[in-house]
Amino acid sequence: MKLLKTLAPAVALIVLPGLALAQDAGSAPDVNPYIFTTLLFLIGGFLVFWMAAGFAMLEAGLVRSKNVTMQLTKNIALFSIAAIMYWLVGFGIMYPGDWLIEGWLGPFFAVTSLEPVGLAAEEAALDYASAGSDFFFQLMFCATTASIVSGTLAERIKLWPFLIFVVVLTGFIYPIEASWQWGGGWLSEAGFSDFAGSTLVHAAGGFAALAGALILGPRIGKYRDGKTVPMPGSNLALATLGTFILWLGWFGFNGGSQLAMGTVGDVTDVSRIFANTNMAAAAGAVAALILSQILYRKPDLTMVLNGALAGLVSITAGPLDPSLFGALWIGAIGGIIVVLTVPMLDKLKIDDVVGAIPVHLFAGIWGTLVVPVYTDGTSFATQILGIVAIGAFVFVTSAVVWLVLKAVMGIRVSEEAEITGLDMSELGMEAYPDFSKG
Amino acid sequence: MKLLKTLAPAVALIVLPGLALAQDAGSAPDVNPYIFTTLLFLIGGFLVFWMAAGFAMLEAGLVRSKNVTMQLTKNIALFSIAAIMYWLVGFGIMYPGDWLIEGWLGPFFAVTSLEPVGLAAEEAALDYASAGSDFFFQLMFCATTASIVSGTLAERIKLWPFLIFVVVLTGFIYPIEASWQWGGGWLSEAGFSDFAGSTLVHAAGGFAALAGALILGPRIGKYRDGKTVPMPGSNLALATLGTFILWLGWFGFNGGSQLAMGTVGDVTDVSRIFANTNMAAAAGAVAALILSQILYRKPDLTMVLNGALAGLVSITAGPLDPSLFGALWIGAIGGIIVVLTVPMLDKLKIDDVVGAIPVHLFAGIWGTLVVPVYTDGTSFATQILGIVAIGAFVFVTSAVVWLVLKAVMGIRVSEEAEITGLDMSELGMEAYPDFSKG
Amino acid sequence: MKLLKTLAPAVALIVLPGLALAQDAGSAPDVNPYIFTTLLFLIGGFLVFWMAAGFAMLEAGLVRSKNVTMQLTKNIALFSIAAIMYWLVGFGIMYPGDWLIEGWLGPFFAVTSLEPVGLAAEEAALDYASAGSDFFFQLMFCATTASIVSGTLAERIKLWPFLIFVVVLTGFIYPIEASWQWGGGWLSEAGFSDFAGSTLVHAAGGFAALAGALILGPRIGKYRDGKTVPMPGSNLALATLGTFILWLGWFGFNGGSQLAMGTVGDVTDVSRIFANTNMAAAAGAVAALILSQILYRKPDLTMVLNGALAGLVSITAGPLDPSLFGALWIGAIGGIIVVLTVPMLDKLKIDDVVGAIPVHLFAGIWGTLVVPVYTDGTSFATQILGIVAIGAFVFVTSAVVWLVLKAVMGIRVSEEAEITGLDMSELGMEAYPDFSKG
Repeated sequence: MKLLKTLAPAVALIVLPGLALAQDAGSAPDVNPYIFTTLLFLIGGFLVFWMAAGFAMLEAGLVRSKNVTMQLTKNIALFSIAAIMYWLVGFGIMYPGDWLIEGWLGPFFAVTSLEPVGLAAEEAALDYASAGSDFFFQLMFCATTASIVSGTLAERIKLWPFLIFVVVLTGFIYPIEASWQWGGGWLSEAGFSDFAGSTLVHAAGGFAALAGALILGPRIGKYRDGKTVPMPGSNLALATLGTFILWLGWFGFNGGSQLAMGTVGDVTDVSRIFANTNMAAAAGAVAALILSQILYRKPDLTMVLNGALAGLVSITAGPLDPSLFGALWIGAIGGIIVVLTVPMLDKLKIDDVVGAIPVHLFAGIWGTLVVPVYTDGTSFATQILGIVAIGAFVFVTSAVVWLVLKAVMGIRVSEEAEITGLDMSELGMEAYPDFSKG
Repeated sequence: MKLLKTLAPAVALIVLPGLALAQDAGSAPDVNPYIFTTLLFLIGGFLVFWMAAGFAMLEAGLVRSKNVTMQLTKNIALFSIAAIMYWLVGFGIMYPGDWLIEGWLGPFFAVTSLEPVGLAAEEAALDYASAGSDFFFQLMFCATTASIVSGTLAERIKLWPFLIFVVVLTGFIYPIEASWQWGGGWLSEAGFSDFAGSTLVHAAGGFAALAGALILGPRIGKYRDGKTVPMPGSNLALATLGTFILWLGWFGFNGGSQLAMGTVGDVTDVSRIFANTNMAAAAGAVAALILSQILYRKPDLTMVLNGALAGLVSITAGPLDPSLFGALWIGAIGGIIVVLTVPMLDKLKIDDVVGAIPVHLFAGIWGTLVVPVYTDGTSFATQILGIVAIGAFVFVTSAVVWLVLKAVMGIRVSEEAEITGLDMSELGMEAYPDFSKG
Repeated sequence: MKLLKTLAPAVALIVLPGLALAQDAGSAPDVNPYIFTTLLFLIGGFLVFWMAAGFAMLEAGLVRSKNVTMQLTKNIALFSIAAIMYWLVGFGIMYPGDWLIEGWLGPFFAVTSLEPVGLAAEEAALDYASAGSDFFFQLMFCATTASIVSGTLAERIKLWPFLIFVVVLTGFIYPIEASWQWGGGWLSEAGFSDFAGSTLVHAAGGFAALAGALILGPRIGKYRDGKTVPMPGSNLALATLGTFILWLGWFGFNGGSQLAMGTVGDVTDVSRIFANTNMAAAAGAVAALILSQILYRKPDLTMVLNGALAGLVSITAGPLDPSLFGALWIGAIGGIIVVLTVPMLDKLKIDDVVGAIPVHLFAGIWGTLVVPVYTDGTSFATQILGIVAIGAFVFVTSAVVWLVLKAVMGIRVSEEAEITGLDMSELGMEAYPDFSKG
């Protein structure tokens, strides 16, 4: 993690609104580095935006056809809500000028957010890149956290309670825990290291999903007489497309997290990150392919897809420092984790429709734990501290929100609606009306 | 709109062909700004290219499965034709060196286009970016205009008459009206403001589609006994994918329209445009989600998708000047417009298969009208003038072309072919031959 | 082809490992050109990565629904294997520091690849761009070569023998023949010209596919009583999406092959390449559309898709020098070649499921042959020499590998498995389990 990330926006938010352009700021920015880094945020940002489409396709492909319209609706809605909530409160909480509780809790409301000039105030304050590009890039990470949750809870959760959870997650839970590290809070002070968010984004999303899965319960008929009933995804072509989209977007996710591209050293680092990210994904896919062949005598495409994703999650906490060989074994172990833990969750009757908990939570923890092997100045103890602190915070706050939603409005569709499928029962609209069901 | 856009290419086209590289031109370009701006055109251009895939997926997802192959064929063919026509005549008309009618009509044939060295002549003339990148970027806007038309007229129009219309639209109608503003013509002189084309591209495409829909008539069985018969799209996963693709491409559409990235001010502006574009899309989606819940008691995914697109169209005329809060309410109203006007069109028995007229025409007009709220030096009167002028020109010329095509070769498939579906009747090829119809 | 491509990495691989950053190298790089060129590799690289998704979607759409899961599995696995093999041996073979046989054969094992610091050693050595970005970019070309093979052999080849072939192709066959030209070997000395790989990548993939198709034989029932039995693709929407993805990725494929973006001349050249690449694709699509209308009285979408791809392959050997008019006719002839040679292959009973041999092999040869028309210093004789040499080498080595695999483990699934479909028989997992078969 680069410290400039934690400092500059914090300054930005306390500057008075104004239409001044960046070059009018007190310290004139160094032109080309400013442009290169801003460009990195823009390219990285649109690549991470693209991951929202990846999650939508992955999840639409892995649910049964009777729940596809609902899954698509949740995905586009959650991204849109994240975009609004992160602007309204999240960004201010995540990069606090004045902490409410020093290092732990930022201000709940960023006054400048509602000023007519909005972002303009901040534009004047950053001297290494445009604040608009920084906001654009950071927003995408917040949305990604929410995308992780929707897959786990698919096929049985009601739309509106889910979206209310997204409001809280993207407006408060994610920004608070992310401020501890990327906002310059207590975890970054403690020496925790999570370059692009194996824990801050992926494990956090996984913890929120786990809390939801426990409170929501498994789908009807998923666990019967001590056995797990397969409920195969309706469109593996879409699921594969989603995986490729996520893989592509991850170059922006990890590469953009270098947060600088204006020097030879920085762009060289971004390149290493690209190469390592690709290697970890490939290794995760190959490991899952081979292991599923060994364990089940048949390769399992959904394991291969999740293996690639787990490889990506695994390298996300430290994509810069490992060699390509390091990225290979870190990613491969990520893929192995997925193949081994998917059935484990089923044994515990935790019903995770798309495998998001193995991929994002378990591989996210793995990736965070392994950082000290290649990154100087980090320690296993501090990495564990970060995982436990963020895990506990996200899991507990998420569970509270889920329980409140359950008590107030119910979070689960009726049994009849679930069996019919959410598309017809909740939305009255089939995703594939012309194709008769087998 | 930046004036340099209107001037430089005009000069380029009258320069004699030659293999000279840009650095040999009279005025040596400032190296890094030239590279940054060229790069903006290239990145922006490939993102807008990607929108062609977005339209193809959106439309393929929203037609019935019996017409999917035809819709895909139209989409890839129209893009290809646009690419050729814009080179052959359109680019010369749009950025005239010598006007045939000053400010109103450029030369119908760009002689240099057929010279063996082609683009090379122009390469020598621009001093702020590569003419090749400018051509590449501008071409994509021309193709977008045609993409809008294909969705409205789906499921009943013949392939070849549609493609002949595309020849005229992309070679003549779009370049002429676009020259009025982006080519330095009379509308730009009058003070009209349309940053990235809410009117020049989107409303123009919508007017062409409206003319076609009126002349072509609705699909058989769409309006029966005073009621609108739903004809649900065959693949909402594809439609959602198409929307995400368009959303992604729009960063290039609006961001690239800054037409410069070589200074701190310009790249900061591009960043603001990215952030505002994203906010408007999110707000359009959320507004449509909430409004469809209120009006119909059930959220409607196709409305949410079109709401996001309407948000994008709405911010396109002025994506730079509004605050994020401005982008939010402008986009949200775009989403509301879609939810309210889709049934209105049906009451008028105007059959718009994918909702392109509400999204591109109505939200395009809205976005153009609202520009003066945030942009200095613009007025509602001039904005209305531009909308009316472009609307009248595109609508009338399109109607003439449609009527001529109808008289000469017919534009509508036979009743039998329409009922069978265009895929088997016209192309002899099903899009999903293995899936039996429900 | 730029010579710096052939020289710098060669130097890189013999440098001792170290963690030195590029700016510590003996010759300090020129900052902005270094950043621009590295950025070109990163953007070009992720675009070419995206082509892997394009091949997956194209092929999944063109096989029958009973073989879709298998085709998806092959595509994600082959990319992952290519990523590992190209790192482990391929990159070292392709850019040899010390040739085993001067100009013909690089070292079979790049020792530095397994050093803990991996890429870090090379980072220090390039002075025009980051070695990491160069590796990332070059890797994608290697993977593309393998993607071409999977389509031709679909619906009947076993998974593991296919993947073992990919190991050999991406680790050895491709890197060896590519080293002849891009590694500074004998073909580049002879004056062969293949800017982005019409022959080195596309025809090479096509020759490997052809060898496989001949040894594997056609699908059961494809040729019966002297007639070709149509086996229509199961999802033309996916096939169209795949084509658009490939088209997008090709801007990176050809544009990135300029290998430099740090001067006005270079970025201007990249722009020309983008414009020409787009024009060739459009012309290929339109030519195939018109020709299929003339020959079959009905336009054929799969021909249009393959026509666009053939246009892209055709311009790949020389995307910089032709005018836009040149790109148009070169691409159009590519499209015509596809329409004419697809039935020719069927007459020869060579069963190429997706048309990869016409698109990549025949149009690749065409594109390579036509280079001297626009590129000074090239000759037809040398172009033919290159095609024959690479063709013979790839065809013979591929055939040997296929024959060994056939003898050792068999390469074809059982007749029963083929009729059932590979998804259920080999993988036990349907791609579309909810849609009943027509």
